[in-house]
Amino acid sequence: MSGGFLGSLLELKFQEIHDLYPVNPKIDEIEGLRCYPSILDIEGHVDHVISMIPARFVPTLVDQCIEKGVRSIHFFTAGFSETGDEEMAKTEREFIQKLNDAGIRAIGPNCMGLYVPDERVAFMNGFPADSGEVFLLSQSGANAGDIVHGLSKRGVRFSKAVSFGNGADVKAHHLLDYAASDPQTKVVVGYMEGVQEGRTFFEALKRCAAVKPTIILKGGIHAAGARAANSHTGSLAGSIRIFEAACRQAGAMRAQTMDDLQDLVVTLTTEARRVKGTGVVLVSGGGGYAVLSSDAIANAGLDVPQMPQETIDQLREFIPVAGTSVNNPIDTNVSGVELQRKTLEIVARAEPADVVFTNSGSTRPDSKEFDPDHDSPPADQIAHARVSAEHSATTIAAIQRETGTPFVAIERGRSYSVVAGASVDAFAHTAQQNGVAVYATVPRAARALGLLLEWRKRREGLPQLF
Amino acid sequence: MSGGFLGSLLELKFQEIHDLYPVNPKIDEIEGLRCYPSILDIEGHVDHVISMIPARFVPTLVDQCIEKGVRSIHFFTAGFSETGDEEMAKTEREFIQKLNDAGIRAIGPNCMGLYVPDERVAFMNGFPADSGEVFLLSQSGANAGDIVHGLSKRGVRFSKAVSFGNGADVKAHHLLDYAASDPQTKVVVGYMEGVQEGRTFFEALKRCAAVKPTIILKGGIHAAGARAANSHTGSLAGSIRIFEAACRQAGAMRAQTMDDLQDLVVTLTTEARRVKGTGVVLVSGGGGYAVLSSDAIANAGLDVPQMPQETIDQLREFIPVAGTSVNNPIDTNVSGVELQRKTLEIVARAEPADVVFTNSGSTRPDSKEFDPDHDSPPADQIAHARVSAEHSATTIAAIQRETGTPFVAIERGRSYSVVAGASVDAFAHTAQQNGVAVYATVPRAARALGLLLEWRKRREGLPQLF
Repeated sequence: MSGGFLGSLLELKFQEIHDLYPVNPKIDEIEGLRCYPSILDIEGHVDHVISMIPARFVPTLVDQCIEKGVRSIHFFTAGFSETGDEEMAKTEREFIQKLNDAGIRAIGPNCMGLYVPDERVAFMNGFPADSGEVFLLSQSGANAGDIVHGLSKRGVRFSKAVSFGNGADVKAHHLLDYAASDPQTKVVVGYMEGVQEGRTFFEALKRCAAVKPTIILKGGIHAAGARAANSHTGSLAGSIRIFEAACRQAGAMRAQTMDDLQDLVVTLTTEARRVKGTGVVLVSGGGGYAVLSSDAIANAGLDVPQMPQETIDQLREFIPVAGTSVNNPIDTNVSGVELQRKTLEIVARAEPADVVFTNSGSTRPDSKEFDPDHDSPPADQIAHARVSAEHSATTIAAIQRETGTPFVAIERGRSYSVVAGASVDAFAHTAQQNGVAVYATVPRAARALGLLLEWRKRREGLPQLF
Repeated sequence: MSGGFLGSLLELKFQEIHDLYPVNPKIDEIEGLRCYPSILDIEGHVDHVISMIPARFVPTLVDQCIEKGVRSIHFFTAGFSETGDEEMAKTEREFIQKLNDAGIRAIGPNCMGLYVPDERVAFMNGFPADSGEVFLLSQSGANAGDIVHGLSKRGVRFSKAVSFGNGADVKAHHLLDYAASDPQTKVVVGYMEGVQEGRTFFEALKRCAAVKPTIILKGGIHAAGARAANSHTGSLAGSIRIFEAACRQAGAMRAQTMDDLQDLVVTLTTEARRVKGTGVVLVSGGGGYAVLSSDAIANAGLDVPQMPQETIDQLREFIPVAGTSVNNPIDTNVSGVELQRKTLEIVARAEPADVVFTNSGSTRPDSKEFDPDHDSPPADQIAHARVSAEHSATTIAAIQRETGTPFVAIERGRSYSVVAGASVDAFAHTAQQNGVAVYATVPRAARALGLLLEWRKRREGLPQLF
């Protein structure tokens, strides 16, 4: 299969609701759309079919699709090879063969299918309507949903996402080849349970990782997970050691958890990807926070280098001695946006600063926490919190731009209040859009940067990606 | 120092704002309260003094406090031994000695002091006004703030919290002894940077951990963290191996991160603390989620045991075959509260079920996600989301009570919307108040339970705590 085919599959030109033909023999109309007894009763041309019927009707649907001359089918329908029932596995093999003989390609069965924001196709509620530069392939629809939701709320956007389930026809290697050549895609991320054709997959992974940062999360590592993977997508999970070695050799990154995966995507889609080395300057909120953060940074293989005397002198000009520290970790008690900005600028320009860690609220105009029980109407408080958070994010982005040192912001949310939630959301989106990486905690930020540096080192000799 | 003294220190009877005497020679009135030029000018009796003046004025204040006959002083004031300046360290030693000779006890210097909800004393905005059963001692005010804020938003409440900074007078061992004998306290948690009197600390830790679950987070493990700890509270961080061994021998738990600490407190304040063994039944949302969760559970030393045939048969009566799994992890597509409740009840009664993991939304009446762009006014949506989340939490709590098997709920929030935030908040509080542990992710829940089981095993021979 060429990238060309998948290209057409992922460019459905599905811009008009009138191009949607519901099929159900028992209903005449769904949400104002005429409903057809079968695909063969549709007058117009049909490009793509989404099968949501019970498994036993699929062979009939397949025959009708061949007769109708459709281009592709997405089988949401489950109940085939993943059940472990040999009869159903045989049925799956047979109808896929029939479709391929007729030149029709299939996604699934047992999957959620396509999310293509620019084509207005999504397989879950709440996916953003605007597109971005991250391509996602996933054997699991639920995990694809968690990845899209989890990264969307951090401000990341997707070019396309494909949940491909059992992968009876379209497989991971097809999607990797498509992603490698898709001009809209800058970063590739995948969730895999099993690899069906090991060598083919590895070669495609290598091709993709050579030209775009590629991150793979592998499920089914332990016995319990492997058993779940087998019943989920009929996958044979295989050895994680071999998978890990394949990723390393291909120049891809292996994420070990869902948090890893999302943090690595944030790292690779912001200026954090350009971190120069292991030197972290930590501009912290509170001494004990600085202590735990320093431990976490060291634990991830990074350093908290001491500041040069020149930097210390510059900081001491406006930072008092009592209750503060200016020799990394930096713990200032200065308030006011100007002095906070000045602190960040000075440390970003210090020679040992490869990256600066700061809190999302470090440059917020109003340092007082917004009180949900405050007198002003909630809508006003929410609006105020959003503006304030956006201002803070753009301030950090500006310092990052001016100094050329990447910044990392830690979202240290202390409240579940609706106002705090709005602030977290606004900060995350504005920061990400302006190239500033935001992480939930210092240990997660440090881990992501440690993994990135290790990956960049390992890739030496391969084409430089950024 | 006896527990009795600290008892009186933490029971200030500070119920009336009229008992508050601001002292500032330059001001006559603050927020409607008369302001005094010095402590000696106050007519009434003074129990407790909070010092927020510059370090150089502290010796004078100390003399005045002795003359006035106060009972205790909290030195928020910093700039003493933690600066590394020998002159300031000497000043600290001298005024602490003077106070002790006069029978006056001191908290700090360089700390945030007291949070005693029942006495209406708090050192940070946003701390809950209602009290609970967790006692916190912390060398760091910022970390104490993060612990109180982080656990409060999960529904946990505190008996008392003490930020004691340099610990020049009141030290960790005094606070551990107080916590051990305080009837309001059921769980003890501490953040430490250095231990000043090793043997004394260890004996107090042993006494406390013998009678109450006791969790200690140690900062300053790596060189960078130790340097930060030294400049923060003047602590010599010491060897983490020795600290770890001391915790083990004392029967205390060592938290390795802030997340660990908070997750362990949630575990110990809910029915999760009674988990019978390593058998986890995972009732999951989606096959891929089940795969990654199974991996994480195995990674934490727990199991995902297969279900007995009897349980499988009971579940198959109402769960269809396609796209589901009834042999742990359980992946059902049933909707409606009644069938969801039935699923949870059946698996909780299965013999290998030591604990059931489920999602916070698993028994939510309306399974559709609340849409922040919905037509109804935001206030209505928020109220609806709260009621729905509370209902879900009480349903899980009821099944936990009826079956005697602990439940763990995973808050799989997919949105930062204000409505989603309200839902997360309501679920967390209701679940915690009803004895159901809530964690952010499956890996964190599994890790907390793994640490708990390991700790319980290690404690064999010590008094049973619950």
